[in-house]
Amino acid sequence: DDSWEVAGRRFTSRLIVGTGKYKDYAVNAAAVEASGAEIVTVAVRRVNLTDRSQPLLTDYVDPKRYTYLPNTAGCFTAEDAMRTLRLAREAGGWNLVKLEVLGEAKTLYPDMEQTLRATKELVNDGFDVMVYCADDPIAAKKLEDAGAAAIMPLGAPIGSGLGIQNPVMIRLIVEQAKVPVLVDAGVGSASDAAVAMELGCDGVLMNTAIAEAKDPVMMARAMRHAVEAGRLSYRAGRMQRRLYADPSSPLGGLI
Amino acid sequence: DDSWEVAGRRFTSRLIVGTGKYKDYAVNAAAVEASGAEIVTVAVRRVNLTDRSQPLLTDYVDPKRYTYLPNTAGCFTAEDAMRTLRLAREAGGWNLVKLEVLGEAKTLYPDMEQTLRATKELVNDGFDVMVYCADDPIAAKKLEDAGAAAIMPLGAPIGSGLGIQNPVMIRLIVEQAKVPVLVDAGVGSASDAAVAMELGCDGVLMNTAIAEAKDPVMMARAMRHAVEAGRLSYRAGRMQRRLYADPSSPLGGLI
Amino acid sequence: DDSWEVAGRRFTSRLIVGTGKYKDYAVNAAAVEASGAEIVTVAVRRVNLTDRSQPLLTDYVDPKRYTYLPNTAGCFTAEDAMRTLRLAREAGGWNLVKLEVLGEAKTLYPDMEQTLRATKELVNDGFDVMVYCADDPIAAKKLEDAGAAAIMPLGAPIGSGLGIQNPVMIRLIVEQAKVPVLVDAGVGSASDAAVAMELGCDGVLMNTAIAEAKDPVMMARAMRHAVEAGRLSYRAGRMQRRLYADPSSPLGGLI
Amino acid sequence: DDSWEVAGRRFTSRLIVGTGKYKDYAVNAAAVEASGAEIVTVAVRRVNLTDRSQPLLTDYVDPKRYTYLPNTAGCFTAEDAMRTLRLAREAGGWNLVKLEVLGEAKTLYPDMEQTLRATKELVNDGFDVMVYCADDPIAAKKLEDAGAAAIMPLGAPIGSGLGIQNPVMIRLIVEQAKVPVLVDAGVGSASDAAVAMELGCDGVLMNTAIAEAKDPVMMARAMRHAVEAGRLSYRAGRMQRRLYADPSSPLGGLI
Repeated sequence: DDSWEVAGRRFTSRLIVGTGKYKDYAVNAAAVEASGAEIVTVAVRRVNLTDRSQPLLTDYVDPKRYTYLPNTAGCFTAEDAMRTLRLAREAGGWNLVKLEVLGEAKTLYPDMEQTLRATKELVNDGFDVMVYCADDPIAAKKLEDAGAAAIMPLGAPIGSGLGIQNPVMIRLIVEQAKVPVLVDAGVGSASDAAVAMELGCDGVLMNTAIAEAKDPVMMARAMRHAVEAGRLSYRAGRMQRRLYADPSSPLGGLI
Repeated sequence: DDSWEVAGRRFTSRLIVGTGKYKDYAVNAAAVEASGAEIVTVAVRRVNLTDRSQPLLTDYVDPKRYTYLPNTAGCFTAEDAMRTLRLAREAGGWNLVKLEVLGEAKTLYPDMEQTLRATKELVNDGFDVMVYCADDPIAAKKLEDAGAAAIMPLGAPIGSGLGIQNPVMIRLIVEQAKVPVLVDAGVGSASDAAVAMELGCDGVLMNTAIAEAKDPVMMARAMRHAVEAGRLSYRAGRMQRRLYADPSSPLGGLI
Repeated sequence: DDSWEVAGRRFTSRLIVGTGKYKDYAVNAAAVEASGAEIVTVAVRRVNLTDRSQPLLTDYVDPKRYTYLPNTAGCFTAEDAMRTLRLAREAGGWNLVKLEVLGEAKTLYPDMEQTLRATKELVNDGFDVMVYCADDPIAAKKLEDAGAAAIMPLGAPIGSGLGIQNPVMIRLIVEQAKVPVLVDAGVGSASDAAVAMELGCDGVLMNTAIAEAKDPVMMARAMRHAVEAGRLSYRAGRMQRRLYADPSSPLGGLI
Repeated sequence: DDSWEVAGRRFTSRLIVGTGKYKDYAVNAAAVEASGAEIVTVAVRRVNLTDRSQPLLTDYVDPKRYTYLPNTAGCFTAEDAMRTLRLAREAGGWNLVKLEVLGEAKTLYPDMEQTLRATKELVNDGFDVMVYCADDPIAAKKLEDAGAAAIMPLGAPIGSGLGIQNPVMIRLIVEQAKVPVLVDAGVGSASDAAVAMELGCDGVLMNTAIAEAKDPVMMARAMRHAVEAGRLSYRAGRMQRRLYADPSSPLGGLI
């Protein structure tokens, strides 16, 4: 058994997938299915959850089967993000949420000052808050001290597909954290997801890498295997890197 | 169906594993099983295949179930390698073989001049020859023209675990090849294997990454998933890398 | 002419060097001389500036010739950092200062919440504040809005010598900034310094890379050339990367 | 004094520059001047050295001041390359030459089989042969045994500007060589040149990085500083990489 727990809930899959940028809800649902995810994150401002005259995500991705994780994509202030999550809780009863307070529209980088403030208020308000954040170990510690249910540093800018830019910082965050750490944003291919898991992360959240692949359902399968591969690789304990048969190499510095 | 073919034989698994450096044949066999491999490569000079007074690899890894791929690890001349493979064919009937002619003991880098000569002779001699080689696209083309059944460029020095050092050259070799291309040597972790497959390789061969992991059987499972993940990621067609919402970025050069 | 300006002062050299970890002040002075630096940064808590019974840095590195930039190395709270800089101003008249408020001792990563607060107070207090900070473009913008004289993101942990870990974020910070941006921390070798400058930074600050080289004075010379090289390379406008003679390559994604 | 020697000739500059792709010979000459190079390499098939009715390179880049290094760019067989160099020797008396035998037009990767054969014949013929080659340490050793005056592995494909792709192999070649090793091809920016020198190479040869920069003369200056910086950085002995203040870090594997 290698399950993990966030806010008292236990999951087997370590891959969280999104619900944006798909051609339609049918493709989205097929990708979610192929990914093996148990949690799907939903931008509550962008996804139709209530207007029955339009297609409803919930008709395709069953909220009884999947844990819905409402997120605040598109919110640029703490107030806006908090209002959005409170409405979501009233509407759907969702208490486990993903907070993101973005600094500006070009990079979608988090505003950590407002993120920390919103985390504190939402925790006081009884939410279980998974928090999108900078790859900043000091800020990550403050979020954890404020009661965050999970720390979710970006691997690279949202939607960039550049892969994990700063493994050193992700690893420092993982080392110190007592709550789950999940890379959120930046994964572009399967190997990127495996790298995130090999750093010791508890999971990976992604949307664009699957939604914008030429074949999203096949990429979802790829990511399922990648997260599993990276997790097993981390647990199995990798071989030592070396340069040649003789490990007492002066080339050590290159590795 | 996404099987592949080498020398007229068809395989489903794209992971080839080794039989060196394990604690014993039992662990080796358990790792082979966990890896899902259909082909196991055997250093005919190092593995006991005939002396019934000692443990026999064949009693643990069933040659009826797995395709044995004899290799010439430890051979430093074309003549030595050819002699070894001829003896192997006489002893076990093995016709599909992996040729490696090493340049020297420190790096175990291939001697491409002798490798090309041995390939030609072995092909003339009726062998199906999978060839360990440099990540040199011109040499790879010559091997193919000489009748090699598969091209197997090193990703990094044998036993180094450094990962794919030169993806540009591996990709050039993949682009031009009409026979299978498999990365042979250099993989250290699951993400390395996924990278190899995302470059479009037909498969990956590894030994040390599994044998020297703290838990070889778990690492074998990791590698099974990693090769599958990388293959699916390649086939699914990854998203475009970008730096921010506005793709017409002056940062393009960074990607 | 390619000089740059911070807080109304104009400099030709884009390399700022430190005064810690040297064998003695004589070696330090020789390294400063070889580096061509016009600004030297001084940890006011660690360097002897006043006790005439001990060797004084000012006897070796002439404050009339070099601009002294007092810094708050070793300060873990905003209050501590502000007190240190106020004492330094009283003692030496230094108004141009480098603020660092560290989050904890293991990584020496900045505490951005306290850093922002201290920046605001120090600016109100009439200081010209160059600010050590995370590679966080939103936090960098806030520092600039608070009146920071220069933004100094870390390239990698202080004293690590790992080189620029996240060029994408450094570049985003450079793109948006209207005050000088200097990489502070993380440079280990000359090529690292050149990379920082090629990203468009206005300068580089380093200490350990020079002080802990086997030959600090020669490394100081190396760094002088490296900063000049990187600056010229940035200004000259580099060639386009390509994979082969035919630029319409399907390999584009690899670059 | 940090001069170096090839084929009995001593040079101070470790940067060799080319004479192709420039707007005209005047810009070329200005770039050569700015680079500080003492050796310029000339594609004897492409540069006008004899037709006095057309502009002559020699009128701009004085062969009395600079060592001309004829090269065989554009030659795809050993015979073609040897014929070219023999004509060059007859015409200009040039005995120190750069051999390149290209495998095909798309990648301009060397054909190492023909390169080795041509090296042997040219050495027998009395030439001092600097040899463009793959980053293959076994082939490099054979070239040296055949009498090559210098080993010149590619850092990346000619004209690609991708930087040093395989530092591990370049370093292995440097470690074993008794003749000078120079990176030839692949440098795109100043930091790339510094990296090559930090690996311990004796020099760097480049053409496109300078010729295709927006400002070739400024880039030539950048490269002069970069080669000097990398050389000094190598000689000065870089600091140890580490992850934090405590060097006994479990993160060691990341470095």
